[in-house]
Amino acid sequence: MALIVQKYGGTSVANPDRIRNVAKRVERFRDQGHDVVVVLSAMSGETNRLIALAKEMNEVPPPRELDVLVTTGEQVTIALLAMALLKDGYDAISFTGAQVRILTDDAFGKARIQAIDADRIRGHLGKGRVVVVAGFQGVDEAGDITTLGRGGSDTTAVALAAALKADECQIYTDVDGVYTTDPRVVPAARRLETITFEEMLELASQGSKVLQIRSVEFAGKYNVPLRVLSSFGEGNGTLITLEEGNNMEQPIISGIAFNRDEGKLTLRGVPDIPGAAYKILGPIGDANIEVDMIVQNIGLDKTTDFTFTVHCNEIKKAQAVLEQVAKSIGAREVVANERIAKVSLVGVGMRSHAGVASRMFKILADESINIQMISTSEIKISVVIDEKYLELAVKALHTGFGLDKPAE
Amino acid sequence: MALIVQKYGGTSVANPDRIRNVAKRVERFRDQGHDVVVVLSAMSGETNRLIALAKEMNEVPPPRELDVLVTTGEQVTIALLAMALLKDGYDAISFTGAQVRILTDDAFGKARIQAIDADRIRGHLGKGRVVVVAGFQGVDEAGDITTLGRGGSDTTAVALAAALKADECQIYTDVDGVYTTDPRVVPAARRLETITFEEMLELASQGSKVLQIRSVEFAGKYNVPLRVLSSFGEGNGTLITLEEGNNMEQPIISGIAFNRDEGKLTLRGVPDIPGAAYKILGPIGDANIEVDMIVQNIGLDKTTDFTFTVHCNEIKKAQAVLEQVAKSIGAREVVANERIAKVSLVGVGMRSHAGVASRMFKILADESINIQMISTSEIKISVVIDEKYLELAVKALHTGFGLDKPAE
Repeated sequence: MALIVQKYGGTSVANPDRIRNVAKRVERFRDQGHDVVVVLSAMSGETNRLIALAKEMNEVPPPRELDVLVTTGEQVTIALLAMALLKDGYDAISFTGAQVRILTDDAFGKARIQAIDADRIRGHLGKGRVVVVAGFQGVDEAGDITTLGRGGSDTTAVALAAALKADECQIYTDVDGVYTTDPRVVPAARRLETITFEEMLELASQGSKVLQIRSVEFAGKYNVPLRVLSSFGEGNGTLITLEEGNNMEQPIISGIAFNRDEGKLTLRGVPDIPGAAYKILGPIGDANIEVDMIVQNIGLDKTTDFTFTVHCNEIKKAQAVLEQVAKSIGAREVVANERIAKVSLVGVGMRSHAGVASRMFKILADESINIQMISTSEIKISVVIDEKYLELAVKALHTGFGLDKPAE
Repeated sequence: MALIVQKYGGTSVANPDRIRNVAKRVERFRDQGHDVVVVLSAMSGETNRLIALAKEMNEVPPPRELDVLVTTGEQVTIALLAMALLKDGYDAISFTGAQVRILTDDAFGKARIQAIDADRIRGHLGKGRVVVVAGFQGVDEAGDITTLGRGGSDTTAVALAAALKADECQIYTDVDGVYTTDPRVVPAARRLETITFEEMLELASQGSKVLQIRSVEFAGKYNVPLRVLSSFGEGNGTLITLEEGNNMEQPIISGIAFNRDEGKLTLRGVPDIPGAAYKILGPIGDANIEVDMIVQNIGLDKTTDFTFTVHCNEIKKAQAVLEQVAKSIGAREVVANERIAKVSLVGVGMRSHAGVASRMFKILADESINIQMISTSEIKISVVIDEKYLELAVKALHTGFGLDKPAE
């Protein structure tokens, strides 16, 4: 008899048949005596359809009105799921974000949750009802409808789980858990039974797109046990927890993330004067370009090379900014390279194991893969390599760190 | 500088182009210095699409959840219109029924308005904003979403106009006003400049489907000047007012309504005993069948014939009920006739003019049309005739009472 918050994404509620499948899954948990709160996204494609409609009216849709528009998507799915549950004889009631009073700030399109009225939901659970809540949406102090931004339904689920002190927050998606790396690249990739929030954050921000980063941060902060599962199959998925496994055989590395979506910019021949880094990255920040990895090498001739990576979509814009910077500080040239890939080893085990980096570099060297940039954090080592070696590098590291599935 | 409430129906907001047209019309009123509150329906077809989705989940959709579902339709159109106005540089803000706090009872699917928070709207009008409100929907004391029932957007508009003490409530529709009768049947039918609420009620309930009856009742009760106009053309439409025209040439008859949707049931040879009418109509009411006209003729042989009309859809059901009644009270037989039509003359001028009924009967007699039933009220005379004579009767009455357009 637990209290479980379940979140189903757009593909899980894409049509009436799938919504009925969600109902059946919810009902199995009810039959086991659990209290269930369900958080739903809009039908897949619906939010994009609504945004396209908005753009027909106004190329830059006003954010307040856009939120009024797109929140209809989840309002449709919550009503349909409640209807399906009621038809099957399970008591159920749907709520929009405003009704449950998921109170947010007034940053339309990217609002942040400030409070949730858990008592109202508890009251209905106490009456034996399944409570179905619209994800992704809330309401501000003025009563205006807000949204939490793309993928915000995960955040809604975690916030509800935290407010209700739920025993588990289950995120149903189209993958059956978190893998050691992308199984499409490394067929030997294994599903992880558990992973820590920290590791999950590093994996997510490195491009393993299973969960929205914000929801993982949120779950970590409030210590909400988070489980990623498939809404189409069975299985236990992956549990994301605060504690590191107490398994003595805890692997050093939990997973390998990679990312092809970045490009590299190098400013050559930067005069080695104090404040050079700020003079370079200040204008980049002013242009609202997010920077990921940064490396500066000191050269022999009193000049340095300054290198950083940005998202591919931003590289042209960043390059134009840098050309200006180069002139003003007297740097030699700007070089851009989009044909790079980033590979990251992630694992809390690194904390207690020395030599992970050198082992990584050796594996790559054995494959004759040149490393262009290196960046490390407490539980992560990232390298930038030539894009064409990406698959080779990930496979070699996966095997080298003992992540491959045992042969059957 | 007036305060005007404008309501646009589903065909007027059926797609982005039409919504832009609505925006242009609103903007013309703003340019003239008027304050404008706009009430919108869902895009035509949308409510039916949502109901079909609901029925896929649950053949008898639970009313509370159905209201959560269908109210998304207007939430989409209000956001889109606000976006169009903002794009054109006109300040605008949209509100759902719950946000404006159109407080209703909790009769989901057919809720009645109890109060409206006019201050919130006035505040935005005072800031020079067009206020765009979702029609058809409200919220109950518990915060649950409700709907006013089909056509409820007219009611929303009138209720807002009453709460705001608006100078005029304009109902934009696909006809350009109220006509003396259906122009498809009588090409000589004229558009009326004005009509009284009472007349409009009789015309509406008799089958002239321009406005929802409830909204007309509401407008009459709160003396809201109501104007019916075309959302596609120009023109002044028809103004519906409390006062009878002070025109000395006020016609006796304002319009002719007709209705082919009724069927007639006769119970022959009913013993002429007290309570017979109740014994007949009680079971009909218990079966939730609405009765329109009722006539009882006393025969010579101590039995009577009892005749009434019901909607065509109900005639089989009513006949089955009557067969039981006939047995229990010892009536001779039940006769049903669906091939009838009802024709009604409507006009406040009847009050001060005697002889309208006899003039009507003479016109019909001159055309050799037999009258099967007669029913009268203060401002209306209805007759039931054989369906095949309907067009002939309406044309003859239209000419006979001087309603034809003057020849050009």
